[in-house]
Amino acid sequence: MIRRPKRVASKQSGALGAGTCNVALLGFGTVGSSVAKILCERSNTDLRLTHVLNRNVARKKVDWLPSSVEWTENIDDVLSSNAEIVVEVMGGLQPTEDWIRRAFKSGKSVVTANKQLIAQRGTELVSLARRMNQQIQFGASVAGGVPVISGLHEGLAGDELFKIFGILNGTCNYILSQIETNGIPFATALREAQKLGFAEADPTEDIEGLDARAKLAILARVGLHCNVKPDSIMAHSISAIDSVDFEYANQLGCTIRQISRAELQGDNLFAAVQPALVELSSPLARVEGSQNLVVATGTYGGETVFGGHGAGGHPTAVAVVSDILAIARSKRSAMTTMTEAPVEKTPTVTAELTAKHYLRFLVKDRPGIIARLATILSHCHINIDAVVQKPGCPKSHLPFLITLEECKASLVEQALQKINSLDFQVQPCLHLPILE
Amino acid sequence: MIRRPKRVASKQSGALGAGTCNVALLGFGTVGSSVAKILCERSNTDLRLTHVLNRNVARKKVDWLPSSVEWTENIDDVLSSNAEIVVEVMGGLQPTEDWIRRAFKSGKSVVTANKQLIAQRGTELVSLARRMNQQIQFGASVAGGVPVISGLHEGLAGDELFKIFGILNGTCNYILSQIETNGIPFATALREAQKLGFAEADPTEDIEGLDARAKLAILARVGLHCNVKPDSIMAHSISAIDSVDFEYANQLGCTIRQISRAELQGDNLFAAVQPALVELSSPLARVEGSQNLVVATGTYGGETVFGGHGAGGHPTAVAVVSDILAIARSKRSAMTTMTEAPVEKTPTVTAELTAKHYLRFLVKDRPGIIARLATILSHCHINIDAVVQKPGCPKSHLPFLITLEECKASLVEQALQKINSLDFQVQPCLHLPILE
Repeated sequence: MIRRPKRVASKQSGALGAGTCNVALLGFGTVGSSVAKILCERSNTDLRLTHVLNRNVARKKVDWLPSSVEWTENIDDVLSSNAEIVVEVMGGLQPTEDWIRRAFKSGKSVVTANKQLIAQRGTELVSLARRMNQQIQFGASVAGGVPVISGLHEGLAGDELFKIFGILNGTCNYILSQIETNGIPFATALREAQKLGFAEADPTEDIEGLDARAKLAILARVGLHCNVKPDSIMAHSISAIDSVDFEYANQLGCTIRQISRAELQGDNLFAAVQPALVELSSPLARVEGSQNLVVATGTYGGETVFGGHGAGGHPTAVAVVSDILAIARSKRSAMTTMTEAPVEKTPTVTAELTAKHYLRFLVKDRPGIIARLATILSHCHINIDAVVQKPGCPKSHLPFLITLEECKASLVEQALQKINSLDFQVQPCLHLPILE
Repeated sequence: MIRRPKRVASKQSGALGAGTCNVALLGFGTVGSSVAKILCERSNTDLRLTHVLNRNVARKKVDWLPSSVEWTENIDDVLSSNAEIVVEVMGGLQPTEDWIRRAFKSGKSVVTANKQLIAQRGTELVSLARRMNQQIQFGASVAGGVPVISGLHEGLAGDELFKIFGILNGTCNYILSQIETNGIPFATALREAQKLGFAEADPTEDIEGLDARAKLAILARVGLHCNVKPDSIMAHSISAIDSVDFEYANQLGCTIRQISRAELQGDNLFAAVQPALVELSSPLARVEGSQNLVVATGTYGGETVFGGHGAGGHPTAVAVVSDILAIARSKRSAMTTMTEAPVEKTPTVTAELTAKHYLRFLVKDRPGIIARLATILSHCHINIDAVVQKPGCPKSHLPFLITLEECKASLVEQALQKINSLDFQVQPCLHLPILE
């Protein structure tokens, strides 16, 4: 049974024209409280916050919300209420997924900022929403306040997109910027980012690229209509990047960024999240601090850029409220986001990128090292482009750089397997693609 | 009477799910033929081109469109047909406006790329569309393929935007880039742009900022909910910019771009289109050739950037097709774009900007010039920041620069009225704001 939510007539003529829309909020953390703030401060009274659900409500309760808002720890209070839209900003896969499913079944539409949930269970949730004649919107799940989901889905719907790349994780971008600017080691930059709230106590999701690849899977679905499981996307850590790598990258006219990239290549989808060298003149190189940037390339329209604040309570809340408004406006036209642009392809996912490569070694110096490396590379049919060694480094921890001419990533991996068994190395060779 | 357009069931399950949507095209120039091409090449058969209207059809007819497409010179053929969406890419104010009105009255929704029409008559057309239970979309009217209209309207709907600025005219940006890169005079750069098709035979609309201010009026309406008449927006020409200005701008760490800017300041709206100095580190400075860039600033989400191809057949056609899809998808939910986010404010429009200023003189050199200028400026309570004169220029045409500390534009105008009557000037002083 699909319950038709009640509509309360509004005295004021709001932006929706047709009365007030009731909204319930699941989660009152940074994003949740920003959403509540925006809903309260909006000059149009077309959206009304009716419920806030959180654990330990007594501790969470604030005095700046209207007294009409019902605070609860019990999802049943929300599901049995007259809220028409349930906003999920709790995070986590469970009980979130169950609650969202129950919301649809209770005749409510859903807005979520939950990237892991949408990346892993998005298709099923969209399809359930459709069966229940409800909607699900997830614009805040990628790039926070940057309206890239709606941009791909609405603004660029008329194009045939084949490539999406960008900087999707502000934590990594902040840490890399700090290593670059202050010449500090990775561990120090991470600690400082944690102190300032730019990185979490357990930074694994960010540093290892798992956060970015969930976002990339969502972008690939919305923009490239590819059904991609996030764990089929290669993710490389940024933890091996040292300040010496920025010095070498600069010598090549480049800097280093964590780049997420998905590109249709025939029946394959190249998809990877990894630190990479990007040219200093590229817009990617100029993304500062915790900013995000997404570039979508289409057959007809060429490159389109979306940039802005990728995280933070307020920017993410803007995306959430925009989604609430989209649902409220559409007056239940029984359409859901992903089904409008159907997921058509289930391509083979590959990380096989043909590019120039950057190999940075840290060795205990002795004669014959270059000769050994050159021999292995040549056996793998890889051409060396340049060998660069900055002066004044200790013989016992000598960093140097080999750049490779354009070749397949798999060839480089093959060569590195042999190279990493050589005993003159102090740490495994750092291997990054150089993106054009 | 509102006629309900027929829906033809489709054998293939297209992206819309609910059958084919018939589309008629008014105008088969650069944009029109690109729209036709995309509609024909789309893998989903959910949009069907049924009519093409143009003058002199016999000369326009192409062989790559399906034979089922009806070519006509008579608008009545389109209005009496089963087309559900009429796409207007003819340009001009008349007969365009009449035809669009008749399309609504014939039960058809409209997509238009016509910035002058929307800037001048948008409110009335939207209101007529709503009365007729139809829709009008105009995403292609600003910044071509850059999805800024949908971005402001959908993606950033949850924010309270207060400032929108950017580069909205590719022709000016191309000409200024050429003057900068090749050190050529304005007239030469314009001629070359015309030869390459980047500028029209009559370039007045672009050069004088009239094109950009129509776009700015539309952005102010969609993003800032301000009802602004385009001719209430100050527009300054770029024709006075010389290559020497780029040399001076560079010495100040800046370059020169035609900047369109609208900002809410209490009950006033600052709105202007003018060449201005922008810092070399700004994203505006890096907009190359005919690219467009728009930055929207909101109370909650901060700055969001949209960039891409601002003109050209294919990019503009992407915006048109995206709009067609939006209408087709919405299944006539009786909502129109501008009415969803109501136009609420009719602010006083002002061009009074408080900024640092760049005054470039061209004089017949003689003693006492700086003293005269300094006296006038000081009488107007304006402080000089610096005087810069590049060496090696002829005494008879000596360019030099005075930068002013932050002050109101009206004070500078006042000073310039006195200054421009001084007889040592070879041409009137060029006066640009220096944007932070």
